[in-house]
Parts: sequence; C-alpha cells; structure tokens
Amino acid sequence: MSKTFVKTLRDAPKDETARSAKLLIRAGYVHKEMAGVYDFLPLGLKVLENIKNIIREELSRIDCEELQLTALQKPDIWEKSGRWSDQEVDIWFKTELAAGGELGLAPTHEEPITDLMKTYIKSYKDLPVYAYQFQTKFRNELRAKSGIMRTREFLMKDLYSFSADEAEHDEFYHKVEGAYKRIYERCGLGDCTYQTFASGGIFSKFSHEFQTILPVGEDTIYYNSDKSIVLNEEVVIPEVLNEFGVSKNDLEKTRAAEVGNIFTIKYKYSEPLGLDFADKNGEKKTVYMGCYGIGVSRVMGVIAEKYADDNGLIWPEEVAPFKYYLVGIGEKGVKAAEEIYAKNPEKILFDDRDARPGEKFADAELIGIPVRIVVSDKTLENGEVELTNRKSGETARCPLEDLKAY
Amino acid sequence: MSKTFVKTLRDAPKDETARSAKLLIRAGYVHKEMAGVYDFLPLGLKVLENIKNIIREELSRIDCEELQLTALQKPDIWEKSGRWSDQEVDIWFKTELAAGGELGLAPTHEEPITDLMKTYIKSYKDLPVYAYQFQTKFRNELRAKSGIMRTREFLMKDLYSFSADEAEHDEFYHKVEGAYKRIYERCGLGDCTYQTFASGGIFSKFSHEFQTILPVGEDTIYYNSDKSIVLNEEVVIPEVLNEFGVSKNDLEKTRAAEVGNIFTIKYKYSEPLGLDFADKNGEKKTVYMGCYGIGVSRVMGVIAEKYADDNGLIWPEEVAPFKYYLVGIGEKGVKAAEEIYAKNPEKILFDDRDARPGEKFADAELIGIPVRIVVSDKTLENGEVELTNRKSGETARCPLEDLKAY
Repeated sequence: MSKTFVKTLRDAPKDETARSAKLLIRAGYVHKEMAGVYDFLPLGLKVLENIKNIIREELSRIDCEELQLTALQKPDIWEKSGRWSDQEVDIWFKTELAAGGELGLAPTHEEPITDLMKTYIKSYKDLPVYAYQFQTKFRNELRAKSGIMRTREFLMKDLYSFSADEAEHDEFYHKVEGAYKRIYERCGLGDCTYQTFASGGIFSKFSHEFQTILPVGEDTIYYNSDKSIVLNEEVVIPEVLNEFGVSKNDLEKTRAAEVGNIFTIKYKYSEPLGLDFADKNGEKKTVYMGCYGIGVSRVMGVIAEKYADDNGLIWPEEVAPFKYYLVGIGEKGVKAAEEIYAKNPEKILFDDRDARPGEKFADAELIGIPVRIVVSDKTLENGEVELTNRKSGETARCPLEDLKAY
Repeated sequence: MSKTFVKTLRDAPKDETARSAKLLIRAGYVHKEMAGVYDFLPLGLKVLENIKNIIREELSRIDCEELQLTALQKPDIWEKSGRWSDQEVDIWFKTELAAGGELGLAPTHEEPITDLMKTYIKSYKDLPVYAYQFQTKFRNELRAKSGIMRTREFLMKDLYSFSADEAEHDEFYHKVEGAYKRIYERCGLGDCTYQTFASGGIFSKFSHEFQTILPVGEDTIYYNSDKSIVLNEEVVIPEVLNEFGVSKNDLEKTRAAEVGNIFTIKYKYSEPLGLDFADKNGEKKTVYMGCYGIGVSRVMGVIAEKYADDNGLIWPEEVAPFKYYLVGIGEKGVKAAEEIYAKNPEKILFDDRDARPGEKFADAELIGIPVRIVVSDKTLENGEVELTNRKSGETARCPLEDLKAY
C-alpha cells in the first residue's frame, strides 16, 4: 500500500451516479475518463484479469481457442450483412482513414470472424470451430449512466461457434450453458444469476441471456416460484406464456442486469458472407453459427453493485484482487505482519502505510478484500492473529503459527 | 495440430509485401484484416503474450505498476498540450460521439495519464510514480507496408515516470535502460539491438532509441567500430559529431528497425496540464516526467523478420509459442509421441495430423518452433528420439528415457 500510487478517495466525481462506480472510483479500482469511459487502475486490472482467467479456464475445458481480432473495420463485410448503416446499427463509432475511406470501430465481431473463417473452413473435416477473444468493444451509446456496467469502451469476451449442422451446434450450445453457469458461480454470482429466455431475433425463436437479479439492473425479468421458468420482459406475451403453460399471474417480476448472452445465429452471417463447406458427399453447405458474449468489465460492475454495503466493496474470493488485507499494529505486530507478508506477497495487500489503524480498517472495508488479518502487540500476547470476514463481518482468532503453516 | 482451426497456407495475400508478414500469415500467426490492421490467431497471441510477460517481469523488477487507460479521448486535455489539432499530430483517428462532441482514438497516452495523476500526486511523498500499460494504440498512418512492424492498430507497452526532480528522474531512466536491455536479450534480440542517440525534441538534447539492425528496417543508424557510439541518422550533424569526438568517416552506416524508445519529457505535459506537487518546504513544483515505449507487436514483427530463413520463421526460445514441435512416425512412434505429449502439453505443439511426415517437417520449419522432436519406429529401435534445432539445423539423438526425465 505504501508503494502504489493509488489512494482511496473521499469523494467520487460529482457526475457519477451509479453506486458501484462511486465505490470503484473511491476505492481506487477505476478512474473516470469521461461519461461511459473508464481507466482501470492496478487493483481494477487485477479484478478484470481474474474474471478473464475464470472465463479462459472454463472455455478451454470445452475446447475453445483464443484469438484476437481488431477494432478497426472496413465497410465491405458489414455491408454484406446489412449492418454497416447507422440506421441498422445505431451505436457505431465511424472514422476516416488518412489514405481515404471510411472505417468503423467494431461494436461486435460476427462479420470479421465469419470472413476470417473463410480462409480456414473448407470441408466438413474443418468443423466444428470454437474461437473466442477478449477484446475492447466500442459502442456509441447515447446515454451512459450505470458506471462500468454500460460503457462506450469495454472489455468483452465474445465466442463464436461454427458447426456443420443444427445437431452439432446444439451439442456445443449446451456445453456453453454449462460453462457459463460455472463462470458465474466462480465469479460469486451463482446464487442470483438465471438463464432467461429472451427474444430470438429473426432466425431463432429464443436466445438465452444470463441475468443477475439486481435492483438497479436495466432489465426486467419474470420468474415462476421455483425459478424453473425465467423470462425476459420482451417475451412475456400470450404466445410464449402458453408455450410454457404459465399465466402472467404465476410470475414474479424483478429488476436484473444482463451478464451474458448465448445466441443461435444459424446462417445470418455465414450466408451473406459466403462461409460454406463441402460436406461428406462433396455438396456445398452453409456453416451453422452461434455467438456467446460476456461483458467482462460489466460483470465486474455487477459484482461490485451486487455485494457492496455502506462501508464499501465486497469481492467474492476468486475475483478479489488479493485474498487478504493485512494490518500490523504496534512494534511487534508490524514485525509479525512483515513476516507474514514476505511469505505470500501475491495474495496479500499489506497496508504498511504510516497511518492510524482506524484509517486502515476503513480502507480495508472500502477496498473489499475478502479477509482482513490484524496482527497486533495485543493479539500476539496470546500468540494469535485476528481474521475478519469482509462479507459476514465475523471475526475469529487464529494462532500465528497456524497462519504461517496455512 | 489436429484440433486447432488454423492451418498453414501456401500463399500470403497478394498485397502483402513484407517477408515477415507473408510468413506470419502463411504459418498461421496472424490474419490480415486490411492494410496495416492484423488479427492475432492463437499462435500469434501466444507470442504476444510471451513478449508481454517478459516486459511485465522486467518492469516489475524496477517497481512499475500496471494499469490500463482508454482508447477514446476527449479533446480538452489534448488541447492544453497543443496536440489535438491534426496539424500538430497527423496520425489521429477522430470520431463523433452520438451524444455530441468530437472524440479521438489515442495514438499515445501522455495527456490522459498526466491528467489522471493529478488525482493521486499532491505531495513529494507521493513521488516517484512509475505506471505502465499494454494497450491498443491507433495511428492513422498514410502508408502501411511493413507487415506488423508498422500498423494502424497495434499493441504497445507505454510506461510513464513522474519524479520530483531531474536527479530522481535520471536514476529511474538508467534503470529503464537496464530493463530494456534485459527485455531485448530475453526476446532474442540482444546481440543486434543498440541503444542509440536520437533527436531529443524541444526539451532534451537527446532521447534514446533501441534499434535492431535489420536490412528492411525503416531507419538508418551510424556506429563506430566497437559500437560504443550509435547514432540515429537525424543526429549525425557536425555539432553532435564534435560532442562525441568522431568524424562521419569513422562511422559505419546500416539499416535498422526501432524496437523501443525512452524519452525525458521534463515538464512538456505536466506544466500545461498542471500536474504539481508540494515539496518538503510546501512550495509548489511541477512534476518531472519521462516516457518509455515498446511496440509489442512491432517487436514480434522484427523478431520474425530478423530470424526467418527460406523455409519459414525461427523463434527465440522465450518468445516461441511452444518450445517443441513433436512428430511421431509409425505405429510405435506415434504411441511414444502421444506419451511424450501427455506429459507436457503446455510446451509441445504436437503434430498429430493425419499427414505425411514430409508435410509435417515442412510445417515445423514454417512455424519455427525452436526444437523439433521426431520419434519413429526407426529411432525407437535404439530407444531414441531425434532432436533438431530449428535455427542451426543441427540434429542429435537422445535416449527416450532421458527425454522423459527431462
């Protein structure tokens, strides 16, 4: 703590309205560049990297490959799909090439990855392909008022699947459902995140979203008593209710924040962009596609919003930038703290600042590291340290020797 | 190899002129989106990550902190430094906010990081600060013809230092020189990369660049016999030659590619942006700054260009996507290869494709993994495997048991 340039702040910028963003700024995770555009400071970057690693591990388990596409886009492939025009897609940032010609900043990547795959997919032997990236997306949102939950520049994980037919696609689609559930569990959102039925667009009856129940969420979802049916507001219409055999009166309504979506897109991009393959009989077929998104910085914002209390942030263990917040009090306490820190600097945020214990305890709460360790001359009288759980507030004593061994 | 969607290609795009880019495309490291804009495929992303990790480790050793700033920029802070206008900076990509107002895509980040530090630097106690990022830069280059060595969208490491005075700055500047030397050594460029004197701009006599000798490099450098004096072409003028006590005739001339620069910028941004601190006597002083860049994707391109031969790429060990390229031949050979692979999948690119050995050997050369391991029914007759060094071409036999132990 004495070495980082970041300090906790008493106040967030006056134009910041979202509670999570205020806390993330005050605790030193992010810095506001302008409305809807945030820098990630060292602590914030650690949280992002932890979420990325969870996603990477789970997608790797279902055989996805990581690549990285570009933000800059030329019009031709987007004109083929009909998504270049600002009438069709109203969140483009467009720019001009010095050498001449219009470019765009990709708000999503179906077109470029479909076009790229034309180089690599020729035959049924080349299928299926599952490719994803962590990449900065740009969306020219008219309003941006939810902190890092809805921004104009944000980190997204977008995965695209390329299959020979619907059966092959469906099998992978279910694997992604499983991977997403594990991702939200590991992010600490398992208990409050539901897979919902959402509007399917032109080519599918439904898509699926993952929605986290959140009072300040931008969406409204409806669910039955055992939450076996969870519907986005836009599909709560007689036709759909009939299909599920429920009436609107059976459903409860709540606010929620979208933390992911999975989408069967069939031939929507592969057909106009000409992504074909030769099947076993040598016949030309069009590749069957799916896309699967998670807004990484958005998930970070939802976690922050979900668990914060009046004193600050509360990070679930796997996404927390550090596992322990360490404070030493008194001469012996500080010396013991230094020894504890030296053994595991990766997991410990050591508050070695020249400051009062009360100030350190307040910052520990604001920054929201899962477990606070206090070692003082007083706890050492019994050869102990004090452990406090940030979420429950519970405190316990533990012999110093046990902590060292642990 | 049988699982990745990427395949080696016979031909690179016709408009691709740089040898390294042709090989990187054919070997499946990158995909060309348009002139000067390249996607990174799984192998290419691994190389980028390896270079990033080398840089991260070396900067961490000199107490630098990692953060991440945004691409989107609002005009005000750039107007203060005089760099918003397209006359001053001719490589801006500019765009329009839907809500109204012009934005730019950052070609560099002195202004936003100087402005950010106003929140955190108030007193001499807050100094020094060393903060860096890996971030995508956008530069509206009129021409782009050197593959991934000069692009319109590229990954850069940019480090900024904030010091109380020149003495504090100089001490860190020398540490960066050391860190950069270790970085280029670990990237395999140590023998052919020199710290050069370059034009210093308005505020310093010189800046320093790191230049790698390369026939297709865009720069020209001059050096004396023991390479103790290496000068960028722009400073080979009578005044500078006098200072170094050499004449132009003493110097050899060669082409080179810039792989990094370090720059004392003093008060150039801190003064107009008002980044001040209170010194020990409570007097207001302006923060003294430095900036230090390495184009990460550019370094990858220079390594590719430097070491390629007629058969393909040759990666130095620490940046190679894998350390070993493994081929099994014959029934027993394939079985032994599978066992070798299972023990260390992270380090091995296993060519388990249903293809002829000759095809696999050609791809091994093209992809450029440092060591090829061949295990065949024939090598197994003596209980051995064959190891071939991609760079030297040298081949040796090694007992299979020793390889397993290794």
